[in-house]
Amino acid sequence: MALREYCFDGNRKLVLKDMPTGAGGRKDDKEELVRKTKENLRLAAKLQEKLYASKTEGLVFALQARDAAGKDSLIKKVFGRLNPAGLKITSFKVPNPTDLAHDYMWRINRAMPERGTIGVFNRSHYEDVLVVRVHQLQKDYRIAKRCLTDDFFERRYVQIRNWENYLWENGFRMVKIFLHISREEQRQRFLDRMELPEKHWKLSARDMNERALWDRYDEAYEDCINATGTPNAPWYVLPADCKWYTRYLLSEILLKTLEDMDPQFPPLKPIEAAAIPEMLQMLESDSLT
Amino acid sequence: MALREYCFDGNRKLVLKDMPTGAGGRKDDKEELVRKTKENLRLAAKLQEKLYASKTEGLVFALQARDAAGKDSLIKKVFGRLNPAGLKITSFKVPNPTDLAHDYMWRINRAMPERGTIGVFNRSHYEDVLVVRVHQLQKDYRIAKRCLTDDFFERRYVQIRNWENYLWENGFRMVKIFLHISREEQRQRFLDRMELPEKHWKLSARDMNERALWDRYDEAYEDCINATGTPNAPWYVLPADCKWYTRYLLSEILLKTLEDMDPQFPPLKPIEAAAIPEMLQMLESDSLT
Repeated sequence: MALREYCFDGNRKLVLKDMPTGAGGRKDDKEELVRKTKENLRLAAKLQEKLYASKTEGLVFALQARDAAGKDSLIKKVFGRLNPAGLKITSFKVPNPTDLAHDYMWRINRAMPERGTIGVFNRSHYEDVLVVRVHQLQKDYRIAKRCLTDDFFERRYVQIRNWENYLWENGFRMVKIFLHISREEQRQRFLDRMELPEKHWKLSARDMNERALWDRYDEAYEDCINATGTPNAPWYVLPADCKWYTRYLLSEILLKTLEDMDPQFPPLKPIEAAAIPEMLQMLESDSLT
Repeated sequence: MALREYCFDGNRKLVLKDMPTGAGGRKDDKEELVRKTKENLRLAAKLQEKLYASKTEGLVFALQARDAAGKDSLIKKVFGRLNPAGLKITSFKVPNPTDLAHDYMWRINRAMPERGTIGVFNRSHYEDVLVVRVHQLQKDYRIAKRCLTDDFFERRYVQIRNWENYLWENGFRMVKIFLHISREEQRQRFLDRMELPEKHWKLSARDMNERALWDRYDEAYEDCINATGTPNAPWYVLPADCKWYTRYLLSEILLKTLEDMDPQFPPLKPIEAAAIPEMLQMLESDSLT
């Protein structure tokens, strides 16, 4: 299995139409890969416990995708297999007036996990170079005119790169996931949302407007992924038409990232070690037998 | 009056021992400068109102100083002349365990004001390259070993420069003030704290330890000011032995910065303008006479 083919860390250029949206040749390996996914997540949960104990690093997954690409179910099915005590999930909706009155990273910074914790951003600071760019929302911002330069989004790419590098240097890893769904699969999922009562709550007429801007989103995603993928904060462009395959790939990325971090249970502190004889004595004298 | 002589924005090197700690030749102009201070603050308050109305930019003063250099009284006497509704004062104490579990800018980011507001940081992110450096506190941080590089503080300077530039590009100005007190004046103020009952609450034996590290703080201040002073986020090294003179200088900086920002009352919105005839009619029919 080559995760590399989905990874964009600045060493090659992403062209979205060349990227698969389905499982391709692995379609027939479903049984094996579903089993592998389960095993990956079992191992990831063990490493998560070490990470939680050591508290020397944090890890953040930023999930970006078109509507109906499966972010929510991916969170449930993949991160739901980890210990929720060591998880911090944040869903970023449309910024509220307080968010907009601050610098755009303000709400993102507030959502940063502690070291030892895995953060999951359901949407993220990347919305500020995606939906904002596609709809040119910055033009209506209440902000000094000097900030609305021609290279407004190029500057944001640099700002984001700098911030993610700052996080890296301060003990946090950022892994960015783009769920790449095909136009046809999105059409089918929207139809499901109309037909199935238990999916009505996800239906939004606004999503149709975004769908109509498909090509402009393609451009925005390509530019931002090409500008912000780095070795220490890579992007993964994952096929999203086939949910079990997406889960499998994310489980591989999660496990590989945790293995790279290599968290260790901290050694017994000398002060605690020195107290062990006394502790033993107290526990023995406290025995009920 | 040449503010330039106190300003460090990357164009010249700071050598602290060459900088004045007192009012120098202006000592005899007290009456005039105290009057000027009052006038500066009156004008600054007017501009603050425009800033508050326009909400297109924010402004942050970061105050750094040795103990007893007068940060608190400066805040009271200078920023106390502005409208508190448009002010956000944050005192950064020793980081608590939650702060330390996050990236070091986390608590700073949370304290950022909204656009239209003037933020005052009583101590700031600069503590992370001052007290941390002098006491080498990073060595005890619970952080991945890969982060504790030889160029740890140089990296922090870059991180801070990048962050302040990000703020600039997003409609916030950062002005950094170092209150430069002499060793003798600090000695005198510590003695006052011991003698005067109303100053006892400020007395801390720990401050004496920091005083003993005078030269190492000098080095840390010089390096960090030289590394992080930029045209858009300048440092001012203000003499702090003579309080009325420090206040005068800060009032000049505050007024000059606000004048540079040049905030404007926003024009009437077309939708509100269109409603004026109806509003007038309602107000007239509502008349009590």
